[in-house]
Amino acid sequence: MFDKHLSRDARNLRPSAIRAFANLINDPSVISFAGGSPNPDTFPAETIAAIASEVVLEKRNIALQYGPTRGLPRLCGQITALSAGRGIRCTADDVLTTTGSQQALDLIAHVLLDPGDVVLVELPTYIGGTASFYARSAELAGVAQDDGGIVIDSLREVAARLRSEGRHIKLLYTIPNFQNPSGRLMTQARRAQVLEVAREHDFLVIEDDPYGELLYEAGADTTALKSRDEDGRVLYLGSFSKVLAPGLRCGWIVAPAPILAKLEIAKQAADLCSGMLDQSIVDEICARDLLRPQVERVRAFYSGKRSTMLDALSTHFTNRATWTAAGGGLFTFVTFPAAVDTAAHLSAAIAAGVAFIPGTPFFVDGSGANTMRLTFAKESDARITDGIARLAATLP
Amino acid sequence: MFDKHLSRDARNLRPSAIRAFANLINDPSVISFAGGSPNPDTFPAETIAAIASEVVLEKRNIALQYGPTRGLPRLCGQITALSAGRGIRCTADDVLTTTGSQQALDLIAHVLLDPGDVVLVELPTYIGGTASFYARSAELAGVAQDDGGIVIDSLREVAARLRSEGRHIKLLYTIPNFQNPSGRLMTQARRAQVLEVAREHDFLVIEDDPYGELLYEAGADTTALKSRDEDGRVLYLGSFSKVLAPGLRCGWIVAPAPILAKLEIAKQAADLCSGMLDQSIVDEICARDLLRPQVERVRAFYSGKRSTMLDALSTHFTNRATWTAAGGGLFTFVTFPAAVDTAAHLSAAIAAGVAFIPGTPFFVDGSGANTMRLTFAKESDARITDGIARLAATLP
Repeated sequence: MFDKHLSRDARNLRPSAIRAFANLINDPSVISFAGGSPNPDTFPAETIAAIASEVVLEKRNIALQYGPTRGLPRLCGQITALSAGRGIRCTADDVLTTTGSQQALDLIAHVLLDPGDVVLVELPTYIGGTASFYARSAELAGVAQDDGGIVIDSLREVAARLRSEGRHIKLLYTIPNFQNPSGRLMTQARRAQVLEVAREHDFLVIEDDPYGELLYEAGADTTALKSRDEDGRVLYLGSFSKVLAPGLRCGWIVAPAPILAKLEIAKQAADLCSGMLDQSIVDEICARDLLRPQVERVRAFYSGKRSTMLDALSTHFTNRATWTAAGGGLFTFVTFPAAVDTAAHLSAAIAAGVAFIPGTPFFVDGSGANTMRLTFAKESDARITDGIARLAATLP
Repeated sequence: MFDKHLSRDARNLRPSAIRAFANLINDPSVISFAGGSPNPDTFPAETIAAIASEVVLEKRNIALQYGPTRGLPRLCGQITALSAGRGIRCTADDVLTTTGSQQALDLIAHVLLDPGDVVLVELPTYIGGTASFYARSAELAGVAQDDGGIVIDSLREVAARLRSEGRHIKLLYTIPNFQNPSGRLMTQARRAQVLEVAREHDFLVIEDDPYGELLYEAGADTTALKSRDEDGRVLYLGSFSKVLAPGLRCGWIVAPAPILAKLEIAKQAADLCSGMLDQSIVDEICARDLLRPQVERVRAFYSGKRSTMLDALSTHFTNRATWTAAGGGLFTFVTFPAAVDTAAHLSAAIAAGVAFIPGTPFFVDGSGANTMRLTFAKESDARITDGIARLAATLP
């Protein structure tokens, strides 16, 4: 009886294939490489507790009240400085804070996408991104990815084909730094080429960068694609979720002024403003220069786990599979021979006490059956080593 | 150059006509009856500061981590109990927490409205509601309101006319308890009749109830329209913004299961989950039974200011204008003779040191030029008395 009341968008909504795995992610008896959340041990709880109490008592008119839709003004200024560290020149007027990066994706999808518009995405890509695009009845087209990031020939080919079919390509969605799920870093040369193609075909680019600060290898160049943006074509998304805590729901967009103005009005309608206590806490952490040492701690925390996982993969999977270097971020992505269907082995793995995410949900073209995503964020070194051995015993 | 990239919805976005008044709302030299925010003196800052610190230190895995899209499970349970107090029978499974009530409006608009669908709204109505509907390219039709709430003859007439024109009425949006901006309370008889018309024409009803706890007169019956909902037609929205603090961004929806399931997926795409620190704080306040005494304090705080304003209006505006009783909520709505255009007197009022909001932005049919919204939430008793006298000197 309710179906007749639903909108077209509602009919196109897709529940997260990952959230469906929540039970196995949270079962403590299973060694989980399946989750996508940061490790709570990295959250600076003592600092946040002390600052939360202070801002509530000393700035209740701000921290507990409605605030500007654009975001807490001083925090927008802090974000400008953070962005400069990624090579992005902007002022506080170019920044909109969001209720996590996910809201940034949703607002952009809302103000740019009409039903049937095409969004180009990487193969594989982040499921929360595709969810926001499907929620506007857009169509997704995959472009190939290798260890250097987007394969430019594939991008050109797909764009040209769609254009010849009369389709309207509105956006390319990319996660150049240590992508979820692949863990890959796009080279700077590829970033320049991606922008070239965007100019040729006149589409905009969403650069989603939640992992840019989580890098473990010297020499990795995470300079933002946005730093090369000469004609205001790139919408850059940042987040405090991975370096502070995702429960605070604090992300941001840097975008060209006319688009930012539309995003601001869309956000007025979406939630008036993001959490003001959350923003006040993050702002105070930045103002006291506590973010830099926090980022160093987070890097050190994950770096060891990442080495442990890569070592265990070398021990057990050399000549059986390949995996990405994960020079940053939270994930490595494993590819088996084409005949292997990782999803078919999930039950056996869980019975053996280890969980992973099969790769197919990350591929909008339905491919990737022979892949899996592994996170090294959650488990101890001992359990990572143990878990990879268990995985080796259940996969071909 | 950017216009060509925008979606249809983006072209239909309307910035808040109220937010444009922000400067005059915040100028401390002006006595402001213009704002819509609760008074920060009502925020239980000491309690929130202590609980924030506790939940961060003791429950960092919850308060600082991603959480379920539906909301913190225990909080959903608390909300069930609060809803029961408004006559609503529901379980925690019927509840979705939202990033303030504004997100609830936005999610509902997303999953129910297609471009051109009609939403019936009260004349006058809340601007944040209309913003969410315009953001989906819906069309709004006004129904008359009097001191008993929606005028049923007008509702029937408008619905019948639209239907005869082949229009698709999807929703009625109503704020039955102490509406923003009118301050009116809908009678229980009218609520029953509204549902009757909704059944006849088969549209759904959004019941937005941010002010239901803020009542100042014994005998006011704020029992929810949702309590009469026999066939699952009403989407009930509640909020902690006016009884605790809006900076925490914590609202909720009680809705029929099939619609709630769609809203949950839409929320996954919109922000994954609402702020977990915010939800943890609100949950703990409810669990410790601190909400009830807080509500009593808030009622006492506003009740005196409301009396002061009504008394001053009687002194200065008897036989010049009429105004609503504001038995609850934050607003009284003043109606002048038809020839008066309140907006034309705003500059003079500000020059005289007092601010109000002209009524027209609240009327989707462009009427209401002879009305204004006044809030008694912000100023002291002395400034309220003074401000109404100043207003009297500048209006005809």
